Amino acid sequence: MVKELKGIAASDGIAIAKAYLLVEPDLSFGKSVVSDAESEVKRFQSAVEISKSELATIRDKAAESLGEDKAQIFDAHLLVLNDPELLGPIEESITNSQVNAESALQETTDMFIGMFESMDNEYMRERAADIRDVRKRVLSHLLGVTIPNPALIDEEVVVVAADLTPSDTAQLNRNFVKGFVTDIGGRTSHSAIMARSLEIPAVVGTKEVTKAAEKGQMVIIDGLEGNVIIDPSSEQIAHYEKVKTAFADQKAEWEKLKNEKTVSKDGVQVELAANIGTPNDLEGVVANGGEAVGLYRTEFLYMGRDNFPTEEEQFEAYKAVLEGMSGHSVVVRTLDIGGDKTLPYLELPEEMNPFLGFRAIRLCFANEELFRTQLRALLRASVYGKLKIMFPMIAIVAEFRQAKAILLDEKEKLVAAGTKVSDSIELGIMIEIPAAAVLADQFAKEVDFFSIGTNDLIQYTMAADRMNERVSYLYQPYNPSILRLVKNVIDASHKEGKWTGMCGEMAGDQTAIPLLLGLGLDEFSMSASSILKSRSLIKRLDKTEMVKLAEEALEQATAEEVVALVEKYTAE
Amino acid sequence: MVKELKGIAASDGIAIAKAYLLVEPDLSFGKSVVSDAESEVKRFQSAVEISKSELATIRDKAAESLGEDKAQIFDAHLLVLNDPELLGPIEESITNSQVNAESALQETTDMFIGMFESMDNEYMRERAADIRDVRKRVLSHLLGVTIPNPALIDEEVVVVAADLTPSDTAQLNRNFVKGFVTDIGGRTSHSAIMARSLEIPAVVGTKEVTKAAEKGQMVIIDGLEGNVIIDPSSEQIAHYEKVKTAFADQKAEWEKLKNEKTVSKDGVQVELAANIGTPNDLEGVVANGGEAVGLYRTEFLYMGRDNFPTEEEQFEAYKAVLEGMSGHSVVVRTLDIGGDKTLPYLELPEEMNPFLGFRAIRLCFANEELFRTQLRALLRASVYGKLKIMFPMIAIVAEFRQAKAILLDEKEKLVAAGTKVSDSIELGIMIEIPAAAVLADQFAKEVDFFSIGTNDLIQYTMAADRMNERVSYLYQPYNPSILRLVKNVIDASHKEGKWTGMCGEMAGDQTAIPLLLGLGLDEFSMSASSILKSRSLIKRLDKTEMVKLAEEALEQATAEEVVALVEKYTAE
Repeated sequence: MVKELKGIAASDGIAIAKAYLLVEPDLSFGKSVVSDAESEVKRFQSAVEISKSELATIRDKAAESLGEDKAQIFDAHLLVLNDPELLGPIEESITNSQVNAESALQETTDMFIGMFESMDNEYMRERAADIRDVRKRVLSHLLGVTIPNPALIDEEVVVVAADLTPSDTAQLNRNFVKGFVTDIGGRTSHSAIMARSLEIPAVVGTKEVTKAAEKGQMVIIDGLEGNVIIDPSSEQIAHYEKVKTAFADQKAEWEKLKNEKTVSKDGVQVELAANIGTPNDLEGVVANGGEAVGLYRTEFLYMGRDNFPTEEEQFEAYKAVLEGMSGHSVVVRTLDIGGDKTLPYLELPEEMNPFLGFRAIRLCFANEELFRTQLRALLRASVYGKLKIMFPMIAIVAEFRQAKAILLDEKEKLVAAGTKVSDSIELGIMIEIPAAAVLADQFAKEVDFFSIGTNDLIQYTMAADRMNERVSYLYQPYNPSILRLVKNVIDASHKEGKWTGMCGEMAGDQTAIPLLLGLGLDEFSMSASSILKSRSLIKRLDKTEMVKLAEEALEQATAEEVVALVEKYTAE
Repeated sequence: MVKELKGIAASDGIAIAKAYLLVEPDLSFGKSVVSDAESEVKRFQSAVEISKSELATIRDKAAESLGEDKAQIFDAHLLVLNDPELLGPIEESITNSQVNAESALQETTDMFIGMFESMDNEYMRERAADIRDVRKRVLSHLLGVTIPNPALIDEEVVVVAADLTPSDTAQLNRNFVKGFVTDIGGRTSHSAIMARSLEIPAVVGTKEVTKAAEKGQMVIIDGLEGNVIIDPSSEQIAHYEKVKTAFADQKAEWEKLKNEKTVSKDGVQVELAANIGTPNDLEGVVANGGEAVGLYRTEFLYMGRDNFPTEEEQFEAYKAVLEGMSGHSVVVRTLDIGGDKTLPYLELPEEMNPFLGFRAIRLCFANEELFRTQLRALLRASVYGKLKIMFPMIAIVAEFRQAKAILLDEKEKLVAAGTKVSDSIELGIMIEIPAAAVLADQFAKEVDFFSIGTNDLIQYTMAADRMNERVSYLYQPYNPSILRLVKNVIDASHKEGKWTGMCGEMAGDQTAIPLLLGLGLDEFSMSASSILKSRSLIKRLDKTEMVKLAEEALEQATAEEVVALVEKYTAE
């Protein structure tokens, strides 16, 4: 039976393929007495053997696609399954207590997990996590249910999940995963950003797709409009095949703009840049005709590992990005950890409101050596390209002054030690806190540039957590209050001969672009996959007309009125 | 040995008295074997008896000072101590296992607590809490340590605590408690607001007073400057006695302004209003010459009880306040629950950032019947005085329109049913979200007034949780960004012939008042105890000069520069 769901269009394109359900399986079972303990032990041993061979496969796939270091976690799991000190007691328990293998496994591992977790030792607590993971796998084979594993996908599918974690998405193989659809999330959630970065169609926030779709059912994902159709009719498939072809044609059309400048109909040039997370993303930037890197999120260097990256590791990454952009400018944001982003090896305080708490530059000031290491790596890399350094979460002028002073101090020390450092590094701040947006004229006297981070700026200006679905109606990029703050920032920078970019989601939004062009934005930084589409749009817009549009928009009372205005102006 | 601490001056005045430590006692103990079980049982019984008589005293004191309903919790505790089903097993455990009474008490009550807590029944879970409380008391007597109880204070003291909860402060007797000092908190924390409401000197946020002070030591609290001196020298006592007298003289001087208008040196009149939480607070408003109620926080009607207040109960409270102000205006804020304020009988979602979440008007829209009940009570009370209704946490124009539509709908129904409702109720909004401050001109076309809630406005504008000490340096009322938003709101209201008040802490701040007068604020609403001091200040200020001061302040880069300007202008 056809089921249609509406979600949030998170990444462009159409996908039509079978559903692959990436959901936690039901591993519940009852405790029971077994009469034939010997064959129960054999059943257990066979589940262990299957688990081992499965883990070996996953391990190899992971090593291939993610690298040896990421594959090591599976080696640890294999070690657990070869440990007689763990397996022995389980088999004894089956034999002596005549209980089913599931119960013996659960009870014995509970004991080990409890023991390891109570130890005040990070290494031992990780062993507890390993045992948990392995237990899940063995249990699934005892119960005959499947634990989905994205690394094992080897046919064309669309992934259906409640949400996708960073480690899930890291394992997705673009050759087979044609799109994905989730229950939760919005346009700025991790899964949505990843989908755009991987350039696969995605719809998020459908609320119930994991309940509605069954394994193997045909699913259409319309990442252009946010529609999801489960078990579609042949007419629907035919229709969407046409939309898919039209979109591919459209993309081919955009492709021609790859090496063109971004110039409006009346000849005003702006810059289209890309947001990246790792040096690997550069390939997509170049392929999509990105003119610069407008935001390099350095957090990824610090994530998914057991300790801080060394100055040398950071230097190599920054150098790679700067060289990769061959002289085009690269805006590097210093560490933005805290809020919703944590590091396993950095203990952060429990906070009642982490988004309003100890994060980004605030945390860097309190952990100055951490901050200085990153700045040294950046300074050393500066000679390999056109580096611009940007500080996140700046609220008051004193914070920028402090960050700049620390940077200059490190520069002086490096130069004194004979290290070459570029003398033309621009220093800027993220504008993501309302206080900084309101006081932009004062900041503009001291910084070289601004980059507006709309995801956070909107959440703070509206006092509405962008991850909280109950207040998601307040995430309003087109609200005149947001546009006014953006205008204030751009005008302030121009008055001092500085420039303003935007690196939040809004910069790549097709409804926002006419407004932002009209407000005078200099650089639009977005997911690489949005660049060509945006260039095509801007080439069709008349800047003088967009200035009028923006002026009118600033005087509206609601976001809905602004959207109506944009539609009026851009319809032709 | 003299110890001097610096904290945040939270409530004016000087207190000099012995320390009363309101801190959790150390109730740790070891398990041991007793040889004489019989006398151990007697020791236990005697601790129970002392606990019972102590509870009976507390119960009576609470009934006297807080009312019969609040005293009932202690009846429940007494019931526990009379329950043979609980006491029997403890005594048996002492006798049979030959263990000390502390262990027997702990182990047996653990069992009962675990049993009650595992039940899916609110009543039973409360029984578990009762047993915990009672166990603490009996343990303290077994161990010979004292559990402090503010209700039992019967000599002049200053209370020393880590923090004061609403229930602690409710039990403080102003005849004996001369002041208090805490480890944590800031000027907008609950304990600070309560101190001003009780008009007792207080210093908060000293970080370590509970460690520094010992029971019975002499303590000086300087609520004017934020100083705390433990075990002061006789010179220090003499000095502070003089300061205390001077402050009392000063207060007597201010007292003379009680029935005067609030007029600047050059003849410009403003209104000084009070923030209140309950009808009981009106006494202080009248005594301090308050010209209006600028903020009636209706949350208190909903707190400290087991169910929602009925429409009738609310009606009576609103009527009492309106009548008590005899025709002077009363701004009632509709329910602001959520964020850091919860109700035991209203289940709220767990949120990652409650300050950016489902609170105030957002919650009222989702619980419309709750909202409508409050509005009906307000409409019915409107004929007893000059009512103004204010909606909290408005971010977008659509929210105000929705709240107004619901109000008008209820009004229509009441009128149709023959109930009298005033036709001159003003409708306003709190300006506490940056989006609303920025878009004030659009709001001003639709509302009758604004009231700026600076506590939240500052926290959102700075993206810094005002309860989080790690980012407390960002709580900057004098930051030019805040002043600009305040100016934008005031100007927008005046352009439409409307008025703007301020009901955050900033309105009563002596450094802020010259700036706010200059920015054109119409109504200053503050703790009643700050009114006369503020009137005295405004009478000494020249409005024309303050306009110039404010204009200059808006062009500064930092809060420090603004403060220096104010000092320059107000020094004579």
